[in-house]
Amino acid sequence: MQIAIATFDKFTALDALGPYAVLCHFPDAELFYVGDQAGPVVDDRGALTIDVQRSFDEVDRPDIVVVPGGFVTRLLVLTGHPLIDWVRRVHPTTMWTTSVCTGSLLLGKAGLLDGLTATTNWTALEDLRQFGATPVEERVVIHRDQRIVTGAGVSAGIDMALHLAAVVHGDDFAKRVQLGLEYDPQPPFDCGSPAKAPADIVADIRARVAAGKERFRAQAAEDARASS
Amino acid sequence: MQIAIATFDKFTALDALGPYAVLCHFPDAELFYVGDQAGPVVDDRGALTIDVQRSFDEVDRPDIVVVPGGFVTRLLVLTGHPLIDWVRRVHPTTMWTTSVCTGSLLLGKAGLLDGLTATTNWTALEDLRQFGATPVEERVVIHRDQRIVTGAGVSAGIDMALHLAAVVHGDDFAKRVQLGLEYDPQPPFDCGSPAKAPADIVADIRARVAAGKERFRAQAAEDARASS
Repeated sequence: MQIAIATFDKFTALDALGPYAVLCHFPDAELFYVGDQAGPVVDDRGALTIDVQRSFDEVDRPDIVVVPGGFVTRLLVLTGHPLIDWVRRVHPTTMWTTSVCTGSLLLGKAGLLDGLTATTNWTALEDLRQFGATPVEERVVIHRDQRIVTGAGVSAGIDMALHLAAVVHGDDFAKRVQLGLEYDPQPPFDCGSPAKAPADIVADIRARVAAGKERFRAQAAEDARASS
Repeated sequence: MQIAIATFDKFTALDALGPYAVLCHFPDAELFYVGDQAGPVVDDRGALTIDVQRSFDEVDRPDIVVVPGGFVTRLLVLTGHPLIDWVRRVHPTTMWTTSVCTGSLLLGKAGLLDGLTATTNWTALEDLRQFGATPVEERVVIHRDQRIVTGAGVSAGIDMALHLAAVVHGDDFAKRVQLGLEYDPQPPFDCGSPAKAPADIVADIRARVAAGKERFRAQAAEDARASS
């Protein structure tokens, strides 16, 4: 079994590393990071550099694909990115194609979510509609027939991957991994979703995301003009 | 503010990356990975290589230190490791010295937990006693006077770092980061601690850990003979 965790410049670290912490325990699996090219890739905070073992060109038949998110995904769906073409190309033969956070937007852009319910980062739910998907406020959305799993924002990748572990290797296996990770979460506050968090913090994050998206739209328009 | 995440060969990825996902949002902070030498370091599953920016020799005055764990820590406390000497050296001037999972054993070996309560991976709680610490089955243990925080196993590093965020930058800041990570965990099972997990899984993991420790003791004894 091949497990490929996709990367791109400015990915969000925990989106990729949360699932990794679960999937790295899958038996008889070859797990690797895949990206535009083999070599270093840097996360969205600039302090984490990880080694990408294979380029998209080299990976034709992965069994499990994980697509992480990052704020930059909003730009990538405007400008295109090799990851989008790759996931469109390999999905027909995967066992499971999965996303975390705004990785769902990349699956959407690849045409994989058309007609399906899906989840993503809470700030990006409505953005799914442009790809024909119906956003749902759930932690993990599994479509067995289409072999697609989407997870909510950032830390939801751990929950997503544990659900996947149960589906692929059974409940006992997933429980063993969960205990191995001592995943008995005890967050200091009960504010991990917009429905529970202080309204001023929710509003401020929404405003920052809207401003960032506006900058990306301007940037994409300028890039299009420059290249035309 | 300098935030140094310590590394060693065969560290457990999420032990380091969980706290990173929180601490990378600290304002006006310079965050980096530190290790025996600058360059690549590989995790305990062999599929994640991250870039260490600085060597222990180059880091004298970090404000916040994070020491992750990994199964190999049981060997490192027997054989010694530069990380142990480094954390002993820098702790007197840190704001906070913290650990995740069996990183607590490294703090213990450095002499930092003597006379304190502390937590660690559930399979290693009793191992803390050899360092004069009293193990407690808690997710996060904070000693404000000694500026030491210990977290439980693997995924507890996220909770540990959010508690630290609240202590350092206030509750509102920590809530904002928690919402940013969409940290509203919904594990598929309620089995993330030995008290809740199926007894046969708990017993099997305990047996594997005991066998691994026995191998490490034999290896350390052989190394000592070979070098004497």
